[in-house]
Amino acid sequence: MLELTKSTIYLATNNMNKFEEIRNVLENSKINLRVINIKGNEIQAFSVLSVARQSALNIAEKFEGAFLVEDSGLYIDSLYGFPGPYSSFVYKTIGVGGIIRLIKDRENKNAEFHSALIYGENGKIIKNFVGITEGTISTSIKGEKGFGFDPIFIPNGYNKTFAEMTIMEKNKISHRAKSTGAFAQWITKKLDNA
Amino acid sequence: MLELTKSTIYLATNNMNKFEEIRNVLENSKINLRVINIKGNEIQAFSVLSVARQSALNIAEKFEGAFLVEDSGLYIDSLYGFPGPYSSFVYKTIGVGGIIRLIKDRENKNAEFHSALIYGENGKIIKNFVGITEGTISTSIKGEKGFGFDPIFIPNGYNKTFAEMTIMEKNKISHRAKSTGAFAQWITKKLDNA
Repeated sequence: MLELTKSTIYLATNNMNKFEEIRNVLENSKINLRVINIKGNEIQAFSVLSVARQSALNIAEKFEGAFLVEDSGLYIDSLYGFPGPYSSFVYKTIGVGGIIRLIKDRENKNAEFHSALIYGENGKIIKNFVGITEGTISTSIKGEKGFGFDPIFIPNGYNKTFAEMTIMEKNKISHRAKSTGAFAQWITKKLDNA
Repeated sequence: MLELTKSTIYLATNNMNKFEEIRNVLENSKINLRVINIKGNEIQAFSVLSVARQSALNIAEKFEGAFLVEDSGLYIDSLYGFPGPYSSFVYKTIGVGGIIRLIKDRENKNAEFHSALIYGENGKIIKNFVGITEGTISTSIKGEKGFGFDPIFIPNGYNKTFAEMTIMEKNKISHRAKSTGAFAQWITKKLDNA
């Protein structure tokens, strides 16, 4: 019965881990999240917000429905923000082992995970939501959950990596859960007022 | 007197090293190369040709004159093509030292420099030119000429890096000289027939 009152929103991604995390945050909301196989151009820019925004503009040109698009990246202090917006490419090429090798001798292991989430509908971008989670890069690869650089990122206040956490645990503190949570709050208010 | 018969073409870049190399290749041609401060969106794509093409499309929308835009990248075999199209970002973050550290223990040191050059006029892309130079990554940083990853790239058949070569030497074999040389040949024929 409840299902009938839900609004369907399409997440433009081919990353099922990302979909699962966002869907989990929206579980008790009025949103019914689906995946749509549509991709915007991702530009080269330092901030994931810039990347996600341009991607959303492209998607809005092609798709009339309500959609979300998310971009995220790991910004490592002592590497001047590397790999940042190119985290996916860097993961596929030098991998988590490459990152560990690059910062092995660095005293400063600080890093931030950034998430930028854009909501669009009727061929327009409506609003963006950003989440940042601070932490450190671990000295070794730990855990098999999550995806991407999760096995080397220890969020501040914890002594395990994102990859050692269940989706529920990670969603209490992750960058993506923060951007999605902000979106959930906003869209709930919007739907209540509609 | 000769100057009067030259055609002016604008290179869209803010990299003066790149400008100098391309200008040097075109020195004895009918082209008078100038810089223009206009930038297209650079997309995230594995090939520099894709990146340059999208960039050229953006520039063509804003600029009516004859222009060139070039994108280049270093593709390292054992790192699955890293840093590739993100060479400039990777240079600014982990730098040449980072690359050396990443491939230190790899037996395979093979790498390729790719250059993609696009020519456009009258608001349209006319033709693209690609140049590839094969070589290896050196075990240490050598030379102070050139720019970017030149100090760690040894072209095949040589025992010094691009950064140990004069612009004239580098222009005999470089990826950028190859793409520019192909363009020079084509544009000369085009101007002769005009």
